[in-house]
Amino acid sequence: WARAVRGLLLDVSGVLYDSGGDGGVPIAGSVEAVRRIKASGLKLQFCTNETQATRENFVKKLQGMGFDISVAEVTAPAPAACRLLKERSLRPHLLVHDDLLPEFDEIDKGNPNCVVLGDAAENFTYANLNEAFRVLMGLEKPVLISLGRGRYYKETDGLKLDVGAYMKALEYACDVEAEVVGKPAKAFFESALAELGVPPQQAIMIGDDILNDVGGAQRCGMRALQVRTGKYRPSDENHPQVTPDAYVTNLAEAVDIILQQL
Amino acid sequence: WARAVRGLLLDVSGVLYDSGGDGGVPIAGSVEAVRRIKASGLKLQFCTNETQATRENFVKKLQGMGFDISVAEVTAPAPAACRLLKERSLRPHLLVHDDLLPEFDEIDKGNPNCVVLGDAAENFTYANLNEAFRVLMGLEKPVLISLGRGRYYKETDGLKLDVGAYMKALEYACDVEAEVVGKPAKAFFESALAELGVPPQQAIMIGDDILNDVGGAQRCGMRALQVRTGKYRPSDENHPQVTPDAYVTNLAEAVDIILQQL
Repeated sequence: WARAVRGLLLDVSGVLYDSGGDGGVPIAGSVEAVRRIKASGLKLQFCTNETQATRENFVKKLQGMGFDISVAEVTAPAPAACRLLKERSLRPHLLVHDDLLPEFDEIDKGNPNCVVLGDAAENFTYANLNEAFRVLMGLEKPVLISLGRGRYYKETDGLKLDVGAYMKALEYACDVEAEVVGKPAKAFFESALAELGVPPQQAIMIGDDILNDVGGAQRCGMRALQVRTGKYRPSDENHPQVTPDAYVTNLAEAVDIILQQL
Repeated sequence: WARAVRGLLLDVSGVLYDSGGDGGVPIAGSVEAVRRIKASGLKLQFCTNETQATRENFVKKLQGMGFDISVAEVTAPAPAACRLLKERSLRPHLLVHDDLLPEFDEIDKGNPNCVVLGDAAENFTYANLNEAFRVLMGLEKPVLISLGRGRYYKETDGLKLDVGAYMKALEYACDVEAEVVGKPAKAFFESALAELGVPPQQAIMIGDDILNDVGGAQRCGMRALQVRTGKYRPSDENHPQVTPDAYVTNLAEAVDIILQQL
């Protein structure tokens, strides 16, 4: 699986670091692994569903942990959603994390005709969920845009429900199907590949999420590895729909194997 | 549809009264309609998915609005859930409204092996949802029991997400299917009919919820009316799966028609 590789797409949370209220901690060997990828001449893009911060602040946090990463190297859902909103003249009611709001500064939010849902974390209050629900129910044709469809993720203090769970709640209540911006949407992987500058056959996705990272990337014609870090659970290895091209202990091991084949 | 009737099952919220932070307000004509049913000799049972209060307090509130109603006349999900928990030796982690907790006083809640979800309202916090999620994920075989599967309901200050939306969030995150206690579960209607003492062919359900009241009752062989009060929306009249035996303006009109046929 490691042959004829020219570029890597890396998931961030659960691969580079474990997130948490304290900012999170790097996963052993990942800081060095990123440096080795860059030194090898392989192309590299980070492909994240992170929606708890602007890309700027997200990158600053990762740099603070020692990662060699820049904003231009990060493909994230909020900028993709802004492009979609502009293309379709949609004015969002935002149910997102406070720290993500600046990504939507340029977007007209008056008289909303859709709801954009991100990983709002503490903003997932009963009142805020009811408010987003009422906006949707007030529209003739409700439009719900979800920044990802993840089920849960792991923080340093335990598992947390991800945006996908709240998306399902609103989908059910309003009898609509959300449009997903972010992994595993094909358009999102394709834009990450375009930024990577490598065709899918020569790229490998490395992530901790069997469905959103591995399944999504494989549907775009890429190879995909699952790391046994982050939200990985042993039961993922019996997943009825998705089988990774390989399992690796962590990012460092994946990079060891890939660099040996260059 | 009004012939050969011996008993009525009445939904409460949206039929008898509109609920709200102030306790709610009776729907015009409903207090008198309940009195007329009782005076007519028809059998009467109230069949509610109310889980924001014990039956005792719920009945007190309705009596305060002038309704002729007693605890024994109310079929509600919490007592049905307690029977199920005891039968199967399940020890619940409760995510329910504070005012419902006394219904579970007799139930062993140590070392939980299931989650019971009710309409927790303000208790649907990010922290409480994560906690219920972690209990489920910690079980070898997650058991999620939901007190109803309603999508939303109407309070005096607007629409609110009902327990079904949160049930879907946890179902998706944990990849489980909830067991529903309450409408539209067949077992729940059957227990209401047993308390009514009338076979389904001679009973009419009257409710404002096209799926949980009308659809559920019809699947048990009952006739079912939808009132145009409460959460009723004109689009319900084009529902792709469920067609009521009749629409009525409100409970008072239904009772007018039924009593004329006696």
